[in-house]
Amino acid sequence: MTWEDIAADKKARIDKSIPDEWRIGVQGQDDSVMDVPAKSGILSSEEIDITNSSAVDLVAKLASGQLKSVDVTLAFCKRAALAHQLLNCALEFFPELALAQAKELDAYYEKNQKPIGPLHGLPISLKDQFRIKGLETSMGYVAWIGKYDEEDSILVTLLRKAGAVFYVKTSVPQSLMVCETVNNIIGRTVNPRNKNWSCGGSSGGEGAIVGFRGGIIGVGTDIGGSIRVPSAFNFLYGLRPSHGRMPYAKMANSMEGQETVHSVCGPICHSIPDMKLFVTSVLKEEPWKYDSKVIPMPWRQSEEDIITSKLKSGGLTLGFYDCDGNVTPHPPILRGIETVVSTLKKHGHTVIPWKPYKHDFAVNLINGIYASDGGTDVFSTLAASGEPAIPNFKDLINPSLPKIDMNELWSVHLQKWAYQNSYLEQWRLREAELGREIDAFIAPITPTAAVRHNQFKYYGYASTINLLDWTSVVVPVTFADKALDMKKEGYEALNELDGTVQEEYDPEAYHGAPVAVQIVGRRLTEERTMAIAHEIGRLLGNEITP
Amino acid sequence: MTWEDIAADKKARIDKSIPDEWRIGVQGQDDSVMDVPAKSGILSSEEIDITNSSAVDLVAKLASGQLKSVDVTLAFCKRAALAHQLLNCALEFFPELALAQAKELDAYYEKNQKPIGPLHGLPISLKDQFRIKGLETSMGYVAWIGKYDEEDSILVTLLRKAGAVFYVKTSVPQSLMVCETVNNIIGRTVNPRNKNWSCGGSSGGEGAIVGFRGGIIGVGTDIGGSIRVPSAFNFLYGLRPSHGRMPYAKMANSMEGQETVHSVCGPICHSIPDMKLFVTSVLKEEPWKYDSKVIPMPWRQSEEDIITSKLKSGGLTLGFYDCDGNVTPHPPILRGIETVVSTLKKHGHTVIPWKPYKHDFAVNLINGIYASDGGTDVFSTLAASGEPAIPNFKDLINPSLPKIDMNELWSVHLQKWAYQNSYLEQWRLREAELGREIDAFIAPITPTAAVRHNQFKYYGYASTINLLDWTSVVVPVTFADKALDMKKEGYEALNELDGTVQEEYDPEAYHGAPVAVQIVGRRLTEERTMAIAHEIGRLLGNEITP
Repeated sequence: MTWEDIAADKKARIDKSIPDEWRIGVQGQDDSVMDVPAKSGILSSEEIDITNSSAVDLVAKLASGQLKSVDVTLAFCKRAALAHQLLNCALEFFPELALAQAKELDAYYEKNQKPIGPLHGLPISLKDQFRIKGLETSMGYVAWIGKYDEEDSILVTLLRKAGAVFYVKTSVPQSLMVCETVNNIIGRTVNPRNKNWSCGGSSGGEGAIVGFRGGIIGVGTDIGGSIRVPSAFNFLYGLRPSHGRMPYAKMANSMEGQETVHSVCGPICHSIPDMKLFVTSVLKEEPWKYDSKVIPMPWRQSEEDIITSKLKSGGLTLGFYDCDGNVTPHPPILRGIETVVSTLKKHGHTVIPWKPYKHDFAVNLINGIYASDGGTDVFSTLAASGEPAIPNFKDLINPSLPKIDMNELWSVHLQKWAYQNSYLEQWRLREAELGREIDAFIAPITPTAAVRHNQFKYYGYASTINLLDWTSVVVPVTFADKALDMKKEGYEALNELDGTVQEEYDPEAYHGAPVAVQIVGRRLTEERTMAIAHEIGRLLGNEITP
Repeated sequence: MTWEDIAADKKARIDKSIPDEWRIGVQGQDDSVMDVPAKSGILSSEEIDITNSSAVDLVAKLASGQLKSVDVTLAFCKRAALAHQLLNCALEFFPELALAQAKELDAYYEKNQKPIGPLHGLPISLKDQFRIKGLETSMGYVAWIGKYDEEDSILVTLLRKAGAVFYVKTSVPQSLMVCETVNNIIGRTVNPRNKNWSCGGSSGGEGAIVGFRGGIIGVGTDIGGSIRVPSAFNFLYGLRPSHGRMPYAKMANSMEGQETVHSVCGPICHSIPDMKLFVTSVLKEEPWKYDSKVIPMPWRQSEEDIITSKLKSGGLTLGFYDCDGNVTPHPPILRGIETVVSTLKKHGHTVIPWKPYKHDFAVNLINGIYASDGGTDVFSTLAASGEPAIPNFKDLINPSLPKIDMNELWSVHLQKWAYQNSYLEQWRLREAELGREIDAFIAPITPTAAVRHNQFKYYGYASTINLLDWTSVVVPVTFADKALDMKKEGYEALNELDGTVQEEYDPEAYHGAPVAVQIVGRRLTEERTMAIAHEIGRLLGNEITP
């Protein structure tokens, strides 16, 4: 078989996993598909209500017996089936397995009259890096099709223990190292709010399915923006925890074993309370007893409470920047930052300019790390099937770079460490000047609102945070608006890339595209940073209250 | 100048740093020098008392004004001067700077009537990897002599903030990758209890000086036993914390930037209360705000309290092994393990056999990691001055091994991670069988009691724990005894190395040599593991009570 045959067969198998009764006919010409679920007639009004709920509400109703897992699971399976037909977002779809698992959980509840764990009966969608015994993890590589997993990833094991139900594994870009979601197996995944926009990547399938509410909490991974970009492009909350907070063991990955910058797992969801539900549920399972890279650090309520008490008196102190000095964001993103800053100030918080510290150095360093094996890992996987590389690939993995050697790597490690420490010093110095703690800073995630296809060019706003390994929480802010976000006239480019990116801004084409910011705290500050993000979302009116 | 000239000049400068009034004449022929301080007449009886105290007592008296830092510092400077003359343990000795620092602290106390921090006025000795502004850090390399440090290491900065006084930087083996302390600058450092025994290494100067009470708390580093071996050989407590607990930024190191197995800092001291004083004092300074590799994890009293409450009811559950399957320990070490096990059982604790999990694999893997650059880093540093390699060097850094490439390194990372996770699984399975938590395990540190010179051959008992990155606390147990520890007749060797090691056991030569065990907890379990070590030391009668 040619690689095309193998890919076509896999695609056909995914399509066949959708039962006929969940199939929709030919769609209209609307760019947005957000209203299809309500109009399709495939979901009952109860199922629409379930899929429009919060995860916190659902687990409460599942735990009290008000809802059955089979009903919740069926609702999400149906909506996910619509999502795949409309957005092309699934690499594995297995409603039968999911419903069987849900039935078992309902039986458990029936017998014990209590939930099995904090996620009892809740469907969770997974990026196609997570292994589930018996299923394929192609991760967008044709060469990996047909290899069936012999065990679960550790996070899958723990989510299962907590009561989660699995029903779908979502699409990724070939290699994972691109922030749009395209592969040679199923092609491109698109944004539910507008098919002409990217859903982001590499956890793009998660962004699309959760944005469409075919999923309530999705799990992605992030080594250079791959959780944050899809969250931002789909008006969702997202958490890139610091390395060592969430388990990654037994997952598939690109450049597996590369540890200079770690990929991390985290949730993509509709609110901070849902995010907290996910994180606390995983931590309750003591992941550090399964995955040596996880730090034995349970949820620290006392850290969250520090922020809560600052909200009650004194307020938060936050830094912000709207340009990293490399690429100036488009007008909607600048307005997004300004909206967050002015909203916070209006509510009595202190918001001060934050000077990005050598982000040009950081971006160069991390791009070198991504390419430190000269692309050997990725290109040998492509060669194994003969499939070609997807477009824009060279943005992150440049095969013309040579593999670096051991002593060069050690020098990179020292540069990374020194950079991290210097940035920490900047933070301390600013705090000393102010005479108070700076709780986090507010920054862009990408230079663009949900980007038009094939126009994602600059990863630096996200990837610098990966190099620092700081905690980042995505907060959705607003939508691009052609009436407010004019193209800059006579813009003087900082450099060629900046000029190209700015040139591509088109108020008409971006109109309505989601705009988000990231809230960045120091390493392993998930509790505080999530609490800050919650408050910002609340002030913006984009957050449910707990 | 030849390398010999440069080394001789440095050695002469160290010698010259000792004032005439602290010089001792020709010594007798005794193997042990432990009684010299009391007999020398150089220290007053008050100074003998000070240097024989615990650090906990000293900081209490310094904090209450009962002692002045100048007096405490002078006492330790004098005793350290004796130590260097007798044991050859210092690479930098700077009593004048120390006394000036002590005077400032006394003035601070006088003015504010309170200590500057929890270590106010306490002298701390440092391995010659720590940088102090204005001093040299040769680290045993001739090529590095004459380079004066422009800033302090982060741990020095934080200890200084906590009130510590610095007066000596102690000797190390050239390259640090050997567990005896020999370099081409000052030669060999010996054991204060018997000059024919090694003081251990690579933090051997710390072991010797603290063992001799020329230091009260010394700071070493450990990448394959370098804190634990000198602690064991000098009847001291030692902590190899997990990576990320103590700051390492801005220190000198061998193979700097190698991050597959991290070297870590930790204290070598006379008791667990002194160890806790050191660790809590450092953590109070929030090292994670200075060094990005440090985890934001303050001292967790609640973790210590879990052990305390087990001691009050139910007792501890501990595993133990006396052989890792690679090299059988000498009879004194086997008796040391047996002593700990039987003592614990007698006091109602549960002690069960622990099956070492693939330690042969672990030892091979970590040895490959030490040599992953084919010795480039170390040998180029030797070449820079022309000095030859010290003996036994090839045990850990084998220059005949080729440098590995990036994809091979990634494969090593995956093997390490899988090994760590499998060992965690073994731990979970044993706990499931038992139906209770296993708090830690007891294991040898080396196959020998304080080893005779040039006979240190096997690092595996220590280095396997480095590969796992588990917390290890050294507890001194007993002394080799020719009447109890007979040579095994007709021993059948497990392999060639095992045969050689066992053959070298000589009851007469080892008589009186310190015997220790390590207490090993999972990653980042310093509070619990120290509390367990404290109880074991207490039951053995080797531990002061707090």
